[in-house]
Amino acid sequence: MDAMPERGFAAGREERRRIRTGAFTGPTSGLAPGNVQANLVILPRALANDFLRFALANPRPCPVLAVSEAGDPTFPTLARDLDIRTDLPRYRVWRHGELVKEPTDIRHVWRDDLVSFAIGCSFSFEEALIEDGIEIRHIACDSNVPMYRTSIPCVPAGVFHGPLVVSMRPLRPADAIRAVQITSRFPSVHGAPVHIGLPELIGIRDVGKPDYGDAVPVHADELPVFWACGVTPQAAIAAVKPEFCITHAPGSMLITDLRNSRLAAL
Amino acid sequence: MDAMPERGFAAGREERRRIRTGAFTGPTSGLAPGNVQANLVILPRALANDFLRFALANPRPCPVLAVSEAGDPTFPTLARDLDIRTDLPRYRVWRHGELVKEPTDIRHVWRDDLVSFAIGCSFSFEEALIEDGIEIRHIACDSNVPMYRTSIPCVPAGVFHGPLVVSMRPLRPADAIRAVQITSRFPSVHGAPVHIGLPELIGIRDVGKPDYGDAVPVHADELPVFWACGVTPQAAIAAVKPEFCITHAPGSMLITDLRNSRLAAL
Repeated sequence: MDAMPERGFAAGREERRRIRTGAFTGPTSGLAPGNVQANLVILPRALANDFLRFALANPRPCPVLAVSEAGDPTFPTLARDLDIRTDLPRYRVWRHGELVKEPTDIRHVWRDDLVSFAIGCSFSFEEALIEDGIEIRHIACDSNVPMYRTSIPCVPAGVFHGPLVVSMRPLRPADAIRAVQITSRFPSVHGAPVHIGLPELIGIRDVGKPDYGDAVPVHADELPVFWACGVTPQAAIAAVKPEFCITHAPGSMLITDLRNSRLAAL
Repeated sequence: MDAMPERGFAAGREERRRIRTGAFTGPTSGLAPGNVQANLVILPRALANDFLRFALANPRPCPVLAVSEAGDPTFPTLARDLDIRTDLPRYRVWRHGELVKEPTDIRHVWRDDLVSFAIGCSFSFEEALIEDGIEIRHIACDSNVPMYRTSIPCVPAGVFHGPLVVSMRPLRPADAIRAVQITSRFPSVHGAPVHIGLPELIGIRDVGKPDYGDAVPVHADELPVFWACGVTPQAAIAAVKPEFCITHAPGSMLITDLRNSRLAAL
């Protein structure tokens, strides 16, 4: 939470400008390569403290990159020019747990009591795996990563509780070992896997039937490898049904000026 | 190979003194806790260069901690007072590939052309795993670690060639991930696992039937985790059948004054 943007400034700023002006409304995967992209959660101040405690108690699925001041739409530690109300391609607005619209701008629903949370996203560690020569199956299949609700409960905090949600990437054993090494360097974007090889032990009966995202093939020479997933906080929020909440729309992430390489612990 | 002994000096020296005087001739497991113990290979100079190249080409199974000058029985980078001819509890003397005796002292067979190699041993990383609270099954069973010849060939060098030999420790998935993190810090004592979970992919048909050591139970909630093993160089030497060779006897390791913690890369 203490890093200031240094490199990747121009590419991130340019993509945010295209998004802010409405020139781009698609998914952000592949934009500003090397820049950190983040999950976005915006909650009324009355819920923000419980949510922050929930995130801090569950850092693997909920790695907090930045928290805003209430009512302040900027995120100066993520990008100097960033306006959280306009700089994502698409948002989801929720009332009492129901999705009410998917706008490309949230200035018309902004409130002075809203607190924004930027939460680390697997794009960062997937980039590091790809640079190491490891194939990411759902990218090769041009589909969403498969995700599963596990039998592992999150640590509850205030009104927030729920199961750990994990994402799965099939890897050959030597690549799985290498992936543990690589992703361990990125604790602020989910870090090392939480499980490997025996899905039934964490309550997953069939890896071919994910709870979110798309199924991908797992070959006979591969193990399913599971990482804590940023859908975990969204599932916890959905269970609480807050009177008002805004999130990013799936795949439409917050593009920052931080560099993925700067998140590496070592 | 550049570390000089600093801590652990007194305990290592005391154990070597007991061994040198013949007061102790048993296995070294558990002696001088925290000190590095090493595999020992002693070869005639005519073979030493090929063997060193073989070890350097296969650093996972053959991590070289130190190489002596020809004819010099000391290892000043491992311990200042060390005499390689007297300071191990038991040796194996081989002629043309046949085990001819298991003496407790090799001064009577010492030659001016002998080169000694100290090779890292899994005791170092097992200590780090145990300190983290991970159970090592073969230690719990009071047996030898199970070891297997794999279908993975070592990189040949000169006359030396042979299969990668691996040791196996059953671990629950979360512990397996933690074990990758911990042992990755120790590249000079075999480092991270080379395989996990699917033994048939590396030519192991039945983990219940190891080629060396003892079988241990693998529970339903565990994966077999495989590390490159220091028996690999011994198997390569056995295949060459050198006219003369000395090794440590199994379990009777070289006790150094280096600290295991000092081998950690990070």
